[in-house]
Amino acid sequence: MQVDEKFLGLRGGEDGRFRFTVEDHLARLDGRLYGGTAIAVSVTAAERVSERSALWMTTQFVSTVGTGTEVTAHAEVLAPGRRTNQVRVTGTSPTGEVVFASLGATGHPRLDGLSGEFEQAPEVRPPDDAERWDSPFAAFRDLAPDMELPPVPPGTGFTGVIEMRKAEVIRHPDHGPGRVCIWVRRRDGGKITPAIAAYMADMVPMSVAHACGVLAGGTSLDNSIRIGTFVETDWILLDLRPHLAVGDYGHGAAHVWSRDGHLMATASQTASMMRFDPTDLPWTKKSET
Amino acid sequence: MQVDEKFLGLRGGEDGRFRFTVEDHLARLDGRLYGGTAIAVSVTAAERVSERSALWMTTQFVSTVGTGTEVTAHAEVLAPGRRTNQVRVTGTSPTGEVVFASLGATGHPRLDGLSGEFEQAPEVRPPDDAERWDSPFAAFRDLAPDMELPPVPPGTGFTGVIEMRKAEVIRHPDHGPGRVCIWVRRRDGGKITPAIAAYMADMVPMSVAHACGVLAGGTSLDNSIRIGTFVETDWILLDLRPHLAVGDYGHGAAHVWSRDGHLMATASQTASMMRFDPTDLPWTKKSET
Repeated sequence: MQVDEKFLGLRGGEDGRFRFTVEDHLARLDGRLYGGTAIAVSVTAAERVSERSALWMTTQFVSTVGTGTEVTAHAEVLAPGRRTNQVRVTGTSPTGEVVFASLGATGHPRLDGLSGEFEQAPEVRPPDDAERWDSPFAAFRDLAPDMELPPVPPGTGFTGVIEMRKAEVIRHPDHGPGRVCIWVRRRDGGKITPAIAAYMADMVPMSVAHACGVLAGGTSLDNSIRIGTFVETDWILLDLRPHLAVGDYGHGAAHVWSRDGHLMATASQTASMMRFDPTDLPWTKKSET
Repeated sequence: MQVDEKFLGLRGGEDGRFRFTVEDHLARLDGRLYGGTAIAVSVTAAERVSERSALWMTTQFVSTVGTGTEVTAHAEVLAPGRRTNQVRVTGTSPTGEVVFASLGATGHPRLDGLSGEFEQAPEVRPPDDAERWDSPFAAFRDLAPDMELPPVPPGTGFTGVIEMRKAEVIRHPDHGPGRVCIWVRRRDGGKITPAIAAYMADMVPMSVAHACGVLAGGTSLDNSIRIGTFVETDWILLDLRPHLAVGDYGHGAAHVWSRDGHLMATASQTASMMRFDPTDLPWTKKSET
């Protein structure tokens, strides 16, 4: 079984119809389907149905389902070019309701084609020197060191399979509020593919809240990723760059760097932001429905 | 008639079905539908059908049509939230073929909600001091000053309605290859709305080619935009930031600044890149089919 199928528990694929069950590690801290899961499933299904590498994927969140639900992801090639395929992936619940809708492209990169990396990596301290985080919300401890932020119980949602450490920034190439850098790896030491990087990159809303200086979470309206060359790397550096917020909506990007500084992908998101009451956090009211 | 409908020649809208004809100013330099037109139509149709402001839009290019073709854009609200709507827009040709597929969101920004701008604007000389460009390909004159690059005939495609000037960069906040800044305005002096900014921002592939140091064009696989607060501005500064290229595919972003330095939107694109033969350029082989 291939890496992505195993990580996501993705089954089937006949006629482009894949299935997965929302296990704990595919859920958010409140037990609902994690956005990173939906884009990772879309990337994998698009690659399999088109027999090409994913170049770009955008996943729109239409409704939500809870832990234990089986979701069907239907991948269709809309424009079957010789080199490039335009693909659509639609995720539906057992009752046929659309859960997520994705658009993307897959292709065959040319070995001698135009290639390059045009962004600078932040200079950060290595993961061994980095503070361990129980969730992305640990970022808020910087904003309010005295705040009582209840820890996330070990194994909750996506935090059960990925380890996060706060990367201390020595020099940032693109200054601004809310720049947060996080070392992320798989707890099982497994490979980080484009689909799994897309899963890991779903943390932009936290950086928007950090830029605004408030304790807030975001409901992602979409997750998008643009994919370059992936190299073997144990950790990725997630380099969050919030762009702007307007009236409780936030936008931003996440550059995905290999440990040795290759820009492997750039992700972006729009989210509906909501201030949290520190006494009523998502992981203290986990729902199972 | 509203600004966007007039600019795009957008008609109808009953049952969410809008129509427009690919006029010269809605075409690329080779006479085919311009990608910026498709995302601008998607933004406008999504706003009208949901009666909300566009927050984010991604448009995937599935097939192409030539000047004179009537395209139908069908806008549907997939998830009608109280505050936020998730929307889909599908563009089809007269024979029912899908031309473009868009996903996006619209919403009601909260007046007292989280707001802010977290990116730095490049410091550039004003438009009055800037070199006039006949098309985005004028950027390549920097790469090969001695190259004979045939001028684009006045009024070709989108260059008929937008004026471009090369903004001389004094200080760039995010150094890297291919950073190109362009002042863009409407030739008729009309208002720049989010839809029209999306139309103008379709120039990322040129900056990817510039970063690679070659004369090349890109066929956009998608155009995406994330929208903030728009202010009155005669010119926008299009701040192109190519991210990476792999095997003739390129990715990058465009920040959209008002003349006085407000970050109004961030756009991004993936494109399939193709080196140009300088003796056989798109505007010397315009097709009308």
